[in-house]
Amino acid sequence: MPGSRCPRPALPILRWLPRYSRAWLPLDLLAGLAVGLTAVPQALAYAELAGLPLQYGLYSSFMGCFVYCFLGTAKDVTLGPTAIMSLLVSSYAFHQPVYAVLLAFLSGCIQLAMGLLHLGFLLDFISCPVIKGFTSAASITISFNQIKNILGLQGVPRQFFLQVYETLRRIGETRSAPSLPCSLPCSCGVLGSAASLLSLWSHPGLISGSLPGAVTQLPLSCGFVGALPEPTACLGWHCCACYRAGDAVLGLTCLAALAGLRAMKSHLPRAAPAEPLAVRISYLIVWISATARNALVVLFAGLVAYSFQVLGSQPFRLTGSIPQGLPALRPPPFSLAAPNGTVPFLSMVQDMGVGLAVVPLMGLLETVAIAKAFGVANVLGSFVSSFPITGSFGRTAVNAQSGVCTPAGGLVTGALVLLSLAYLTSLFYYIPKAALAAVIISAVVPMFDAGIFLTLWRVKRLDLVPLCVTFLLCFWEIQYGIVAGVLLSGILLLYSVARPPIKVSEGAVLLVQPGGSLHFPAVEHLRGAVCSRALAASPARSVVLDCCHISSIDYTVVLGLAELQQELRGHGLSLAFCGLKDPVLRVLLSADFEGFQHFPSWEEAGEALGCCPRTG
Amino acid sequence: MPGSRCPRPALPILRWLPRYSRAWLPLDLLAGLAVGLTAVPQALAYAELAGLPLQYGLYSSFMGCFVYCFLGTAKDVTLGPTAIMSLLVSSYAFHQPVYAVLLAFLSGCIQLAMGLLHLGFLLDFISCPVIKGFTSAASITISFNQIKNILGLQGVPRQFFLQVYETLRRIGETRSAPSLPCSLPCSCGVLGSAASLLSLWSHPGLISGSLPGAVTQLPLSCGFVGALPEPTACLGWHCCACYRAGDAVLGLTCLAALAGLRAMKSHLPRAAPAEPLAVRISYLIVWISATARNALVVLFAGLVAYSFQVLGSQPFRLTGSIPQGLPALRPPPFSLAAPNGTVPFLSMVQDMGVGLAVVPLMGLLETVAIAKAFGVANVLGSFVSSFPITGSFGRTAVNAQSGVCTPAGGLVTGALVLLSLAYLTSLFYYIPKAALAAVIISAVVPMFDAGIFLTLWRVKRLDLVPLCVTFLLCFWEIQYGIVAGVLLSGILLLYSVARPPIKVSEGAVLLVQPGGSLHFPAVEHLRGAVCSRALAASPARSVVLDCCHISSIDYTVVLGLAELQQELRGHGLSLAFCGLKDPVLRVLLSADFEGFQHFPSWEEAGEALGCCPRTG
Repeated sequence: MPGSRCPRPALPILRWLPRYSRAWLPLDLLAGLAVGLTAVPQALAYAELAGLPLQYGLYSSFMGCFVYCFLGTAKDVTLGPTAIMSLLVSSYAFHQPVYAVLLAFLSGCIQLAMGLLHLGFLLDFISCPVIKGFTSAASITISFNQIKNILGLQGVPRQFFLQVYETLRRIGETRSAPSLPCSLPCSCGVLGSAASLLSLWSHPGLISGSLPGAVTQLPLSCGFVGALPEPTACLGWHCCACYRAGDAVLGLTCLAALAGLRAMKSHLPRAAPAEPLAVRISYLIVWISATARNALVVLFAGLVAYSFQVLGSQPFRLTGSIPQGLPALRPPPFSLAAPNGTVPFLSMVQDMGVGLAVVPLMGLLETVAIAKAFGVANVLGSFVSSFPITGSFGRTAVNAQSGVCTPAGGLVTGALVLLSLAYLTSLFYYIPKAALAAVIISAVVPMFDAGIFLTLWRVKRLDLVPLCVTFLLCFWEIQYGIVAGVLLSGILLLYSVARPPIKVSEGAVLLVQPGGSLHFPAVEHLRGAVCSRALAASPARSVVLDCCHISSIDYTVVLGLAELQQELRGHGLSLAFCGLKDPVLRVLLSADFEGFQHFPSWEEAGEALGCCPRTG
Repeated sequence: MPGSRCPRPALPILRWLPRYSRAWLPLDLLAGLAVGLTAVPQALAYAELAGLPLQYGLYSSFMGCFVYCFLGTAKDVTLGPTAIMSLLVSSYAFHQPVYAVLLAFLSGCIQLAMGLLHLGFLLDFISCPVIKGFTSAASITISFNQIKNILGLQGVPRQFFLQVYETLRRIGETRSAPSLPCSLPCSCGVLGSAASLLSLWSHPGLISGSLPGAVTQLPLSCGFVGALPEPTACLGWHCCACYRAGDAVLGLTCLAALAGLRAMKSHLPRAAPAEPLAVRISYLIVWISATARNALVVLFAGLVAYSFQVLGSQPFRLTGSIPQGLPALRPPPFSLAAPNGTVPFLSMVQDMGVGLAVVPLMGLLETVAIAKAFGVANVLGSFVSSFPITGSFGRTAVNAQSGVCTPAGGLVTGALVLLSLAYLTSLFYYIPKAALAAVIISAVVPMFDAGIFLTLWRVKRLDLVPLCVTFLLCFWEIQYGIVAGVLLSGILLLYSVARPPIKVSEGAVLLVQPGGSLHFPAVEHLRGAVCSRALAASPARSVVLDCCHISSIDYTVVLGLAELQQELRGHGLSLAFCGLKDPVLRVLLSADFEGFQHFPSWEEAGEALGCCPRTG
């Protein structure tokens, strides 16, 4: 996982920059390039996933690289948009850039605050089963969402289970789509830009009513009736229904290609320097194509789409025009100009609600150690219209495999993103949506960890409870899943603290040894157990409490033990302590525990009590 | 504290009844009588405190005795109204018997449910500092409330701090009250019963508007203007203002008497059988008068009041007429007939709100072990118009000191209460309110434990935090204090679980020994600490993790340890385990932890790693 926990100087860049060796340069360049080739297509795809105009993906992708170059501690971590974050943004930013950017700013502030106030330990309470349950559920939700997009189904509800139902019910619509290329001219004569029509397809949310403009039912030539906002047009192309089949085919092809390249890479044997040049070169080719697979697939799909365009027909939904140029450098928006008056800051915050807790926490989940870097990245990012970002596992892996030497690699990646913003957006026009969907799916599918269920069954069954609860509830609402999981594992934790294992060995005296630390919720239980065991036998036996595992006790425990002693005395028995660690002994002594007796070892205690049993 | 935790048969009465010896009978009778003589005056006083008509105190006092006789496990515990419970009732039952009785029923059901579902462990999370903070705050609140009543100040806000302010501001009114007996005839010629006027005085709550009837300002002859609901009258007695001075004097006298008798008892030397008869008799006299001090003081005050009455002037506010006879046996009210339509069950439940959690929990606080008895007592009690009851420490002490042998003593107490309900209520008419106030104060003052602050400072300073928070917030709202205290001690607990002490001993290898159990929130911290310590020294050292104090681990911990191992490997170091207990070892093995090595003792582990340090 990204981010080592080892000691760091004040400004991490000072750790490597002064002793930067020229030998590292090519490697950092190569790695930065490789990451960039993954980052750019993913940026577009994740913006799509977040329900934002695609340029925001790119806006979000460079600041992280630069910031982390200065504040980063691990050489291979890369910050930027991730599938999880985009999913969260899509559910807390209402598909509105204004909300997304503000969310980035506030999340950054909260992360910084957590770092400065040393609140990182809060994240320790999100146990691994909860994380696994969340990510697995997220990967399913995201993938399914994309499949739905590929099938071009619209007006499908956001709630996952309804989504599944709707999709399965209407999947026939795809099959019934006309064979492509559909030769019928389009009947809807409304004027407008093709882009508006196409880009709209990427947002079922927009089409199902959340768009300001009026929405009309347009009967299209191939019999499909879709709700298209005007102004819109087909400009002689095929109507939207016709894209379904094309998108489905292209999407599956890209998915297969990505999976294949991924598999190839994982099975690639290390090329020994001894091998002949040809082998090494072919190895290099495979390696590069596998590493830059996202870029390659998107490029290929774009070329296909472009050639269809040239042939005068377009079976795919395209990304459409993306505004060129770098984002304006301006403070994040603290109010929203809505058609019905401006929405003030506070009500925006209220709208985002629990998102302001979930997003920063999820952003730090695996990388508390670099909370500062993340916080700064989000805060600064919000000044260049970035949505919330975090550490990307996929790109971090690419970075590591490309043999990056220092965080300087990030500079190259960032530069690449800026360049593509400056010059390539016009080319992005031809990227098919389906290709981006494939990029997303291939990125999130590995996040689904089916093995964890089996592993937990084998290793620790109790942990299956938070896992399953989180997993299932996350399909309903992400925050419910996480909160329920955290609470549940908290309760299980507290229960195990309240009921530590107590080892009791019978004998002339009863030797009682609490298995773990003794905290206040456990003392009544201990007392009951000891008392009943001591009085169960006849004659009743005195008790030796072996505290070797107890590292600290609180006042409630002291009282409980005092009461236990009184209770035993009431039956003419005594209680002795042994194996007391200094802090515990100090507390017990300071409590001037009446009739308190302790011994270094339980044998001595046993003798002391055993030889002369007090009779009440 | 009441209620031993030792093993119990199904129906506890079967434990002692079959072998009931005649020798026990007189002792049980005496004890039952002694408790009864405390129970009856306290019943009246606590009803007053709960803001209910006084007969409800008696209604609440007998069922507990009978139930506990059957279900009781400790011979000396007595159930009935207590100051704490009455305080809670006064804040959750709105001075309306209907609510109080329903509260008793529901609390009983909840307590039974907790007993059956083994939810008793929930109470373990209410730590001793929280309890102490709550009871200390309660004793101050209650005492102050009574002082205010003695001074006869009305319309004083319920909120404690405002109450203090108001009282201090208006305390002059007492001093300025006319010398008694006030010779002026009363000017308010409204018709009605004296009782209504007098009893109203005991309920500032009622006077400050919560009474259905109209409230008028009546100018009284001695210049005092009080808001008295009509119909009301003075019937030629002195107006209410005049009672202040009298009540103040009487109240303080009773208080002094009770304190004196209490002190006497505690300093009473044990009378040895050897001593002459005279000594033993005088001892007995002192003992009896000290044990039955509440009854004596109330009786004395009643006589004084009666004689004033005979002399034709009345300087004290009296209890007034209490309806004679046993309570009707009927199910608790599930709806309330209010002037503006009936209040349905659900909205009554909503009105009581958090009270439905606080009352049952506080009722069980110190006596989880007999939750069943308490639940049954409350449920059955609610059928005879009882308000919530619990174990009374004061009367339990009386019971024990009177040498009770079996729970049968409760039968006598219960009978005594029933008798007084049947025949004595007419005498209670003359009991001055001030005497009851004194009874309450002398009962609650010992609950204030000033020492605890010092003790905690000496023993465990951290526990001062929940103590103080609970103590202070309880003056604001009881439930806030308790909830805040519980949450706070929970957080402190979780923090100590998340940051167990880690003992690190330097050497050729690093020996790391977690002080307590290792739960998931602790593993990241452990990892960071170990990693930094291992790499701090040069050459970096391998690590031996001594798990002798770890009794169980969860999957998150396993993962964390695996990652720690990888991290160390990355630096060419290794990680070995020693002192693994079986359950822990089983988990680690089942997780097929790659490169997992463990040794029985840390010496062996040290040698194994020390001799052949792997170099990455």
